[in-house]
Amino acid sequence: MAAQISFGPRIRKSPYFDRTIEAGASHFSIYNKTYFPVSYGDALAEYDRLMEGVAIWDVSVDRQMRICGPDAAQLVRSLTPRNLATLAIGKGRYVPICNHQGVLLNDPVLLPISDDEYWLSIADNDLILWVSAIAAERGFDVVVDEPDIAPLAVQGPKASNTVAALCGDWVRDLKQFAFCPHRLNLASGETEVIVARSGWSKQGGFELYLQEPEHGYALWDAVMEAGAPHDIGPGAPNYIERVESGLISMGADTDPQTNPYELGMGKLVDVDQEQDFIGKQALAEIRADGPSRTFLGFIIDGDPFPAANKVWWHLYSDGEYVGRVSAGAYSPRFKSNIGLGLVSVDFAEPGTELTVHTEFGTQNACVTQLPFTTEAF
Amino acid sequence: MAAQISFGPRIRKSPYFDRTIEAGASHFSIYNKTYFPVSYGDALAEYDRLMEGVAIWDVSVDRQMRICGPDAAQLVRSLTPRNLATLAIGKGRYVPICNHQGVLLNDPVLLPISDDEYWLSIADNDLILWVSAIAAERGFDVVVDEPDIAPLAVQGPKASNTVAALCGDWVRDLKQFAFCPHRLNLASGETEVIVARSGWSKQGGFELYLQEPEHGYALWDAVMEAGAPHDIGPGAPNYIERVESGLISMGADTDPQTNPYELGMGKLVDVDQEQDFIGKQALAEIRADGPSRTFLGFIIDGDPFPAANKVWWHLYSDGEYVGRVSAGAYSPRFKSNIGLGLVSVDFAEPGTELTVHTEFGTQNACVTQLPFTTEAF
Repeated sequence: MAAQISFGPRIRKSPYFDRTIEAGASHFSIYNKTYFPVSYGDALAEYDRLMEGVAIWDVSVDRQMRICGPDAAQLVRSLTPRNLATLAIGKGRYVPICNHQGVLLNDPVLLPISDDEYWLSIADNDLILWVSAIAAERGFDVVVDEPDIAPLAVQGPKASNTVAALCGDWVRDLKQFAFCPHRLNLASGETEVIVARSGWSKQGGFELYLQEPEHGYALWDAVMEAGAPHDIGPGAPNYIERVESGLISMGADTDPQTNPYELGMGKLVDVDQEQDFIGKQALAEIRADGPSRTFLGFIIDGDPFPAANKVWWHLYSDGEYVGRVSAGAYSPRFKSNIGLGLVSVDFAEPGTELTVHTEFGTQNACVTQLPFTTEAF
Repeated sequence: MAAQISFGPRIRKSPYFDRTIEAGASHFSIYNKTYFPVSYGDALAEYDRLMEGVAIWDVSVDRQMRICGPDAAQLVRSLTPRNLATLAIGKGRYVPICNHQGVLLNDPVLLPISDDEYWLSIADNDLILWVSAIAAERGFDVVVDEPDIAPLAVQGPKASNTVAALCGDWVRDLKQFAFCPHRLNLASGETEVIVARSGWSKQGGFELYLQEPEHGYALWDAVMEAGAPHDIGPGAPNYIERVESGLISMGADTDPQTNPYELGMGKLVDVDQEQDFIGKQALAEIRADGPSRTFLGFIIDGDPFPAANKVWWHLYSDGEYVGRVSAGAYSPRFKSNIGLGLVSVDFAEPGTELTVHTEFGTQNACVTQLPFTTEAF
């Protein structure tokens, strides 16, 4: 199934594109209509680098939807079920966004830049169409757009040393999701980036939000230089690590019916707050009834899977379909095959034994809570 | 720049996926979150097949947004500036969809299935987010969803013979964009497809809308068998043919400011109709002022380009930026390099000489009207 990706003008190229090619990007996907380097040809080396060292990831595919104007705060509050009463400039939040039926549409990180400017670092869909429609239909005084802002992630236990060498020791004091603008003097000139303590792994790290794409190569080079003492190397959001850490991938783990309660995001949904928001009534009803599925881990028997799943794997109990594994792989951390997915609440009790149909044969799958713990194995 | 495409569960696979791989699909893109085979490794053979014979294209990436319910017709009419007063069941229409500022959001073909069911065969974006938001905010009594309907295109001068052999001679009487449901008795069993006279080329052809994905392989095989006497072979929406024919590609040719008047779609915009629709006032103002850019052809000097453009090519007049070529290639039909793109109306007079910066050097570019005609060369 080796086929090339077609490069053309319909899909955006990242400001780091040539650097990723030079660094040996071997596999691409497309995410938010932008080419997305997802592998450099050595999955294990990339995993080790993330777990023990530091990796540089081109995540410019995490496009920034920007909401500006006098009604920006009001619009943002009406978009998410999360209670934003204590939202503060410079402190990001993970904010589920739902439709009127309580279905999850996107799960961005919200960056409050100022009282009248907010960025949403979005997963792979055109959330701008949703937000623009809501803003226009409700007559909000805002401008909604998607500037060419390109996050570059630095992830892994040595990310702090790397970003501190580049930006200063102050970055060590940033709390999770906190961010701060910072001027960098790059080979290409001065530019302001936003330095955020964030990233799509549980190994810790930062994201540098580049606002002037013409400095992309110089920023990449500066990060590589700052990380050289720690053997920094290229990587990408890591499939195995995300399964081990139970991170949710919109579109991969979700479907057009998935609501936040199913995904274990109930604590981010406040249907009791005074603030009205889209989906409030539907979510209150789902909470009252309880969700019908729940997102869990699975410990799967058999020889180590030779590769990650390419399709959803269906789960059965006594021949009855009860759910699916949307992400599955062999875990070096737990020395076992593992998976993530939505299963009917009737079969969600930890310890429940199910059968899973995989590309590598049929196996037993044991339900376990998330995050995975060593004790469960 | 040869890199592989990454196949994984986040992106949909077409019901024809394995058949396209077996047929030698060498290059993929991603479109509407579905893998999209765009080349079978021999661009010239694919071009010739489309121009002189018949080709089978997996265009299941053209996802169908379905609007059902008592208010479906009313919602559809409020979404598009096109006058739908004479819309009839079984007759498709190309319908631009704009936002409140008159910017083009998508340019689907509308299929009126019944009085309370409409399909929109969409270009590459999540139009469903826009339509769902409008429907919910306005309280329309509709269900908006995106079923797994997978169009398979049969294109080229011998498409009529091929589809007639498969479905019957009645298909020859279908007018452009007309469609009709038809039951097929395939190797996998009976299934109903919608047979439409349509397709993204000017060489004529049909699209078969498969509604039961499990019949995908059998439908592919049946089309290949019906087309065997005409040497049918695999292909994809053809880049060179689309440039020669002046077909617009949403996302490639457009940007977040493009309106239908710029694209020469003025005749599809009726701001004088009684029916209200989104963007009516903005489009009336654009019509009154005249658009600032216009979509035109360019005849470009120099040796035949070795490949199509991978990025937009900028156009200059006396050193001043005046527009861009969004699609450019060597045309076998006109035996010249040609291009398409938006240029400032001040430089849109046919015969205007501009300079274009391409990946293959700087060249003279002469403005010409669309469609290209042999006389212009």
